[in-house]
Amino acid sequence: MKLRLDLSYDGSAFCGFQVQKNGDSVQSALCRALSTIFREDVPVSGCSRTDAGVHARHFVSHAVIGTDTLPENLLKSINALLPDAIAVHRIEVVGDDFHARYSAHAKTYRYYIFNAPYRAPLYAGRVLHVPKPLDIEAMRSAAEELIGTHDFKSFQSAGSKVTDSVRTITDCRILQDGELLYLTVTANGFLYRMVRNIAGTLIDIGHHKSTMTISEILQKRDRTYALRCAKPEGLYLWQVDYPEKGESE
Amino acid sequence: MKLRLDLSYDGSAFCGFQVQKNGDSVQSALCRALSTIFREDVPVSGCSRTDAGVHARHFVSHAVIGTDTLPENLLKSINALLPDAIAVHRIEVVGDDFHARYSAHAKTYRYYIFNAPYRAPLYAGRVLHVPKPLDIEAMRSAAEELIGTHDFKSFQSAGSKVTDSVRTITDCRILQDGELLYLTVTANGFLYRMVRNIAGTLIDIGHHKSTMTISEILQKRDRTYALRCAKPEGLYLWQVDYPEKGESE
Repeated sequence: MKLRLDLSYDGSAFCGFQVQKNGDSVQSALCRALSTIFREDVPVSGCSRTDAGVHARHFVSHAVIGTDTLPENLLKSINALLPDAIAVHRIEVVGDDFHARYSAHAKTYRYYIFNAPYRAPLYAGRVLHVPKPLDIEAMRSAAEELIGTHDFKSFQSAGSKVTDSVRTITDCRILQDGELLYLTVTANGFLYRMVRNIAGTLIDIGHHKSTMTISEILQKRDRTYALRCAKPEGLYLWQVDYPEKGESE
Repeated sequence: MKLRLDLSYDGSAFCGFQVQKNGDSVQSALCRALSTIFREDVPVSGCSRTDAGVHARHFVSHAVIGTDTLPENLLKSINALLPDAIAVHRIEVVGDDFHARYSAHAKTYRYYIFNAPYRAPLYAGRVLHVPKPLDIEAMRSAAEELIGTHDFKSFQSAGSKVTDSVRTITDCRILQDGELLYLTVTANGFLYRMVRNIAGTLIDIGHHKSTMTISEILQKRDRTYALRCAKPEGLYLWQVDYPEKGESE
């Protein structure tokens, strides 16, 4: 039987979602908890490989278990077994064709920036502190240029085996709530460190440090033209969308 | 010369604002930083004594220094000397009659509740987790009954020397953003643990555990009739208001 688990986590406690040699991962914590409950090895897959330090407000996993009956209070049991930095919000039985990663048709990430000369103690580890004022209008115009179907190779970090770097961004905006800014990006898929490379580039554009426009950077299809990669602490996987039942995939 | 300092802090790192024998306080951290900069003992006063673990989104202090000139980059220097859990947002020279506590004419506190069967890793230490569903409409009606000038003795914890327990609440509301609820209370002054006692009572009302209405509890003028005191982690001093210049105090 296949289970879908919707969860959230504080990424600062983990080496990322995926099992790694160094440090604890969200995936291994989920495997341990489910294996304890079902008394069998339970493989767990995720909708995305988030990097070390990246948070998830909404993350989707699937797990295959060898039994056809679920224990009562499964949600309560799994949360009791997981570290406090992970919470499972919902567990449901899904069809065999459901795949946390391949069934997803859109993902939304947010990147939070605290833009003030002083730090934000109440958002420590949750936002990137940018002390110098940002030209938000310049960042907004640049964000708009990213919308559409493009080859995002310039925004893909080295270390990925992905060869097709064409993706479609359907929404890319900068929103502001006082000193707190956030970038929200929705796409059908993301390349390795794509949102952090976009966030770093937009911050540099906000500081008038870029000599190239986003369109020019995209045309280069070369990572060395985009600007710095922003730290993981401001990044959140915000929402993962799947087709509604009956909707064609 | 008198300085006004507007700051914020993560209360979980401190034994409260006020200097205590046990643990580090925000007040002693401010004194140390200012004394280092001005090379003299600098006394610091606060707008409020927040309890251990209570946060401040906006807190106001004043400090008296023996010099008439301020060093350049004072804001940067003080933030560099303070622990990361405190940030000074603004420093300004004020008249001798300014007093962080006595000049304030209103304070607003917020109490944050995460109301879901699962915990909130991304709000750890920042909200109270209440797993059982709350009757928000019952809490809203009860909150409204608190508005006005009343004797709040039933909501004052033991351990305070204050004898006049009449205060005026001008705003008291429950707001909701998904699973996150918050109580916002504005008053001309607050008694010892008044907001936490109000929050605890409203949560118990939200669980239909109270046999008395807020008006009945207020009339008793006795702490034993109000319900439990909510934990400090959900509480924030949110805003402190002073008369505008030229406005009569």
